[in-house]
Amino acid sequence: MTTKSLRSMLACAVFLAVPTAALSNDLLEEAKDYFEPIPSVVPSVKNNAVTGDKIELGKMLFFDPRLSSSALISCNTCHNLGMGGDDNLETSIGHGWQKGPRNAPTVLNAVFNIAQFWDGRAEDLKAQAKGPVQAGVEMASSPARVEATLKSMPAYEVAFAKAFPGEDSPISFDNMAKAIEAFEATLITPYSRFDQFLEGNTKVMNEEEQAGLQLFIDTGCASCHAGVNLGGEGYYPFGVVEKPGADVLPAGDKGRFAVTQTADEEYVFRAGPLRNIELTAPYFHSGKVWDLEQAVAIMGTSQLGEDLSDDEIKKITAFLKTLTGEQPRVDYPILPVETSETPKPELMVVK
Amino acid sequence: MTTKSLRSMLACAVFLAVPTAALSNDLLEEAKDYFEPIPSVVPSVKNNAVTGDKIELGKMLFFDPRLSSSALISCNTCHNLGMGGDDNLETSIGHGWQKGPRNAPTVLNAVFNIAQFWDGRAEDLKAQAKGPVQAGVEMASSPARVEATLKSMPAYEVAFAKAFPGEDSPISFDNMAKAIEAFEATLITPYSRFDQFLEGNTKVMNEEEQAGLQLFIDTGCASCHAGVNLGGEGYYPFGVVEKPGADVLPAGDKGRFAVTQTADEEYVFRAGPLRNIELTAPYFHSGKVWDLEQAVAIMGTSQLGEDLSDDEIKKITAFLKTLTGEQPRVDYPILPVETSETPKPELMVVK
Repeated sequence: MTTKSLRSMLACAVFLAVPTAALSNDLLEEAKDYFEPIPSVVPSVKNNAVTGDKIELGKMLFFDPRLSSSALISCNTCHNLGMGGDDNLETSIGHGWQKGPRNAPTVLNAVFNIAQFWDGRAEDLKAQAKGPVQAGVEMASSPARVEATLKSMPAYEVAFAKAFPGEDSPISFDNMAKAIEAFEATLITPYSRFDQFLEGNTKVMNEEEQAGLQLFIDTGCASCHAGVNLGGEGYYPFGVVEKPGADVLPAGDKGRFAVTQTADEEYVFRAGPLRNIELTAPYFHSGKVWDLEQAVAIMGTSQLGEDLSDDEIKKITAFLKTLTGEQPRVDYPILPVETSETPKPELMVVK
Repeated sequence: MTTKSLRSMLACAVFLAVPTAALSNDLLEEAKDYFEPIPSVVPSVKNNAVTGDKIELGKMLFFDPRLSSSALISCNTCHNLGMGGDDNLETSIGHGWQKGPRNAPTVLNAVFNIAQFWDGRAEDLKAQAKGPVQAGVEMASSPARVEATLKSMPAYEVAFAKAFPGEDSPISFDNMAKAIEAFEATLITPYSRFDQFLEGNTKVMNEEEQAGLQLFIDTGCASCHAGVNLGGEGYYPFGVVEKPGADVLPAGDKGRFAVTQTADEEYVFRAGPLRNIELTAPYFHSGKVWDLEQAVAIMGTSQLGEDLSDDEIKKITAFLKTLTGEQPRVDYPILPVETSETPKPELMVVK
């Protein structure tokens, strides 16, 4: 083969894989109206200065199973930082092998959500962190038990004093939550190919992915899934146009209705943030759908009233896979040593 | 205060805290007959070359909960590297919240033990690694399920091919165990104060600790708890002189008898390795004793026929706390992404 024919083949391959620069630039400008890249620095959080000492403490707490009454379940059990920040289960397994009611949302980039949980009942990550620790089907502990546990270990005394300087009684359930929030603010995943695209390097997304992005905007996905997290910013009924079957949308879970007691919030949920979505199957609050293409199809019929074609579904899914960012690298923490004062594990399930 | 009186006070303090150099040197020479320091390099293991690629793969596998059928329990669940390499529970909690029969031994320095498990039924760490993965009360998986799981994820295909170059079918249950063994060989804790003492720096152990070491040798503890791990090298009846109560030594667990079916091996267990012992409460195969001083007292009466005085117990315990070494620092692994081929979690308990 001559060098010339090889070159023209390569040129052809590039032509197939990447849209023309002009088209890409139009798409980029349109995309910028809807989406924002993940910042490469740790974002600030409200009413909680994110310091290095607080992050270090929060990391210990995030991985410490002794925040649960069994001493077996940590935040990382259901929000596994090696697995996209969730547990890849339909719904989580907690204290006494009890099944939780909803699919565990990822902790990655959660700092960018408008509020936490599928129904947004926690206004921020420090409020969220207090929930699972106390939930009987999750970590089954209590503020008093957590405080007694942390106060029993000298290394925690030191770490809390450093993270909350000048406070009279630095170890508290509130400060536990603040430290965890500070650590979680570091769990962001910048540098995805979509972020690079948004920053102007349109060549990192191939033709199929760009076509998927165009469809994502044109069919209306982006009206709910926008912003930094492509979701996580607002509340919408699951089934705007057509309710999915009870297998996907169980009748017993009425979503935000339980929070607001407002009739028109029945089956309303926070739009799922789509960052790293390929890492966090199964999908939806019910965790009933394992396949991302199937999830896209369901969204089409239930939210948009669109029977997306197989080709459209493939393209949108290809686009969604460009949302996988650089996963946070974490040095596994060495945890404080227990003392005779540390409350003993409680394995029994109290109902 | 004059400089001179300050100096003489300091001299006095030093005199109180550290024995004379001559006494320390005698003790050091005696100690060297019984004990060996932990090497500062990763030891080799039999029939399994420890390579960087194998260690990296082994680390992923060690932290991957998808080796369990629930996709919730990893090696690190019961051998938590942030908590001394065990779970600080009486006996471990496994699949379906079932309680395991014995206290989880630490994985730290386990590579130096003569054999694995409390009854030594696994000859090495690669044999050990296959046990909990299959045990119904632990991870409740099977070789076939593990292989199907690993083969379903392209990133594991790549990692196994790198770790086991030239093999036709690198993903296998055997190779899973070999990779875990290679990673576990890195989980050693050198540079404890006792190691520094053994290397000749006798000043790192104070008077009480050195007195404890002397007692540890003189009362006979060191006849079973010797070598690199101060234990883990041989099998002995629990209750050589006097059987402890059924609360500490439950009648139903006959130890090595179940392995060898030899009558005189009833209630015979591997002498517990004592490295990092202050991090791994509760103690004994039953996990019934939370207090290290109490454990020392029980060993005195049951194994040596000695009612150790409170002062002796305190000194021996002080010595045992010099066995805490530098804990291994591990970068938490980002795990391979599941595919549609990955077996789904099985949460039911099959009895």
